[in-house]
Amino acid sequence: MADEMLQIRLASRPDGRPTPQNFDLDRGPLPQPGDGEMLVRVIWLSLDPYMRGRMSAAKSYADPVEIGDVMEGAAVGEVVTSKNPDFAEGDVVTGRFGWVSHAISDGTQVQKLDPAQAPVSTALGVLGMPGMTAWTGLNRIIGIKKGETVLISAATGAVGAVAGQIAKAQGCRVIGVAGGPEKCAYAEQELGYDVCLDHKAAQDGETLAKQIAEAAPDGIDGYFENVGGKTLMGVLPNMAVHGRIAICGMISWYNGANMDQTMPLPKAWSTILTNRLKVEGFLVPDHWQHYPEFVSEAAPMVQDGRIKYREDVTEGLENAPEAFIDMLEGGNFGKKLIRVGADA
Amino acid sequence: MADEMLQIRLASRPDGRPTPQNFDLDRGPLPQPGDGEMLVRVIWLSLDPYMRGRMSAAKSYADPVEIGDVMEGAAVGEVVTSKNPDFAEGDVVTGRFGWVSHAISDGTQVQKLDPAQAPVSTALGVLGMPGMTAWTGLNRIIGIKKGETVLISAATGAVGAVAGQIAKAQGCRVIGVAGGPEKCAYAEQELGYDVCLDHKAAQDGETLAKQIAEAAPDGIDGYFENVGGKTLMGVLPNMAVHGRIAICGMISWYNGANMDQTMPLPKAWSTILTNRLKVEGFLVPDHWQHYPEFVSEAAPMVQDGRIKYREDVTEGLENAPEAFIDMLEGGNFGKKLIRVGADA
Repeated sequence: MADEMLQIRLASRPDGRPTPQNFDLDRGPLPQPGDGEMLVRVIWLSLDPYMRGRMSAAKSYADPVEIGDVMEGAAVGEVVTSKNPDFAEGDVVTGRFGWVSHAISDGTQVQKLDPAQAPVSTALGVLGMPGMTAWTGLNRIIGIKKGETVLISAATGAVGAVAGQIAKAQGCRVIGVAGGPEKCAYAEQELGYDVCLDHKAAQDGETLAKQIAEAAPDGIDGYFENVGGKTLMGVLPNMAVHGRIAICGMISWYNGANMDQTMPLPKAWSTILTNRLKVEGFLVPDHWQHYPEFVSEAAPMVQDGRIKYREDVTEGLENAPEAFIDMLEGGNFGKKLIRVGADA
Repeated sequence: MADEMLQIRLASRPDGRPTPQNFDLDRGPLPQPGDGEMLVRVIWLSLDPYMRGRMSAAKSYADPVEIGDVMEGAAVGEVVTSKNPDFAEGDVVTGRFGWVSHAISDGTQVQKLDPAQAPVSTALGVLGMPGMTAWTGLNRIIGIKKGETVLISAATGAVGAVAGQIAKAQGCRVIGVAGGPEKCAYAEQELGYDVCLDHKAAQDGETLAKQIAEAAPDGIDGYFENVGGKTLMGVLPNMAVHGRIAICGMISWYNGANMDQTMPLPKAWSTILTNRLKVEGFLVPDHWQHYPEFVSEAAPMVQDGRIKYREDVTEGLENAPEAFIDMLEGGNFGKKLIRVGADA
């Protein structure tokens, strides 16, 4: 085991919900780094909803993973052997190593982590891409202001949990929507949401709309959109005049499911006009130059506990496909990680 | 005739397309102004698409016209008798007098016009609310930049014609969409559009999308949305990354028609995310404090012919209902006006 490399490749493109047959587990000998390269042993692999898009052939903002190629993904690992002067054996690093146990890297877009500063897994979650996504959506897209009412969907997810806590820290009234009573209790009791509504308990978007109207009688000023579907149907009629919607994701529609949980586009368009809404899609790579600003704000809040985080860990790279499929349907509770190897 | 007052009242709310039966023509004696008031004789009445919304009971950004009330609208008229110290007999003024031949006004929100500066009807069109709407959508919502490609729907309408010419003057490549070869020829030959596409000649949104793709191979940076429907279906897939859509109106959907000319909301939402679009609704009253800025830019352009305008005049207040119904289906060619009375 220690001498072999595991890689998970895309075997076929999913039609709707992915299945384990869409993935291939590949075993082979450990590769050797060439000049300027290093061998990294992966400790943590991050699973994120955007990966569903990469499994499809459709043109999107990034190229799809080709059939037979290793699944893409961010990971944290330890340098085993280095022929790169910038990295030494034992360094803990983060980079886009993919769904693998080991990777050869030339150091491009690889960052060293300081395990003394924060648990290294946070580089994939609260202090990594998901946290940066939350901060960007709130501050650079919605532009939240103190005293405003903000609604966060997927309220306990890797992005949502950080968004809710940042909005609260900035003086907003924060309403969450999450799936199930356990997540909602966690959102209210641990993450500080003023209210968290359970979309699974609401039979449809109209029911959810009534609950949101009760929770936010003056309307929603900012909506952090992670899910689409029933939640969007509940939020849209409740947007306040001059409200802003940051579209970060729409996980409920990713597998081509829940397409009945929608409204006619003319009705949505009319709501945007009548209430003078701003609806903006964003992808965090476009904003990465602001990462230092995010970290300088968020890292102290993570260290002193103002931002809490929760990780949902599955053991073993071979279990990543099942964990990923489950996550797309909300089965995770917190940032989804695969424990690939032992700590450094 | 000179001694009676004509008023057009809302008789009943339309179900879909308005009919002449939704309006009542009311004749009565001329009213007399009280202290601080004046009697205005209307010369020009403006017909605008937003009036369709006021005929419905549904909550919108403004209160509906009540059944039996006079239809709302902006007009230009001459002061006949004044007991208001700010206005004198013979003054030409503009205000929201409604669908009437005469009105009593206390001068609130009434402005004097200088007939020497520009034809007074322009206060209802190119230098009034429609012109200000065009300027606001381009500069304050889309934020057009020199060299960008901008698409204007209802390209020869009261708003669109001004938008197209301002965008062109600001150094954009400007594509119009209008209904019929005559309007398209006018857009290209008189208004300076680089290309104008005829949506009536395109059987569906997909056909229009192909034509737009040919006209704008690098995509549309800014879309001035006046119509919804087939045109929106043609534009949305052609939006460039970081494109902006200003939703000003959606006339093709106002009568509840063309609801099949749409796409599923999840598809639209996905396009907004993937291409990082900004979609923003706006209403010009929210921006009225910038009117002097607009006029200072636009008035010289109207005077020296850089902004051309075209008026579509129907004679007689009693013909306003039919003219309005026709306008909602694109029957007008230029700014729609009713000639209510003789020039001052």
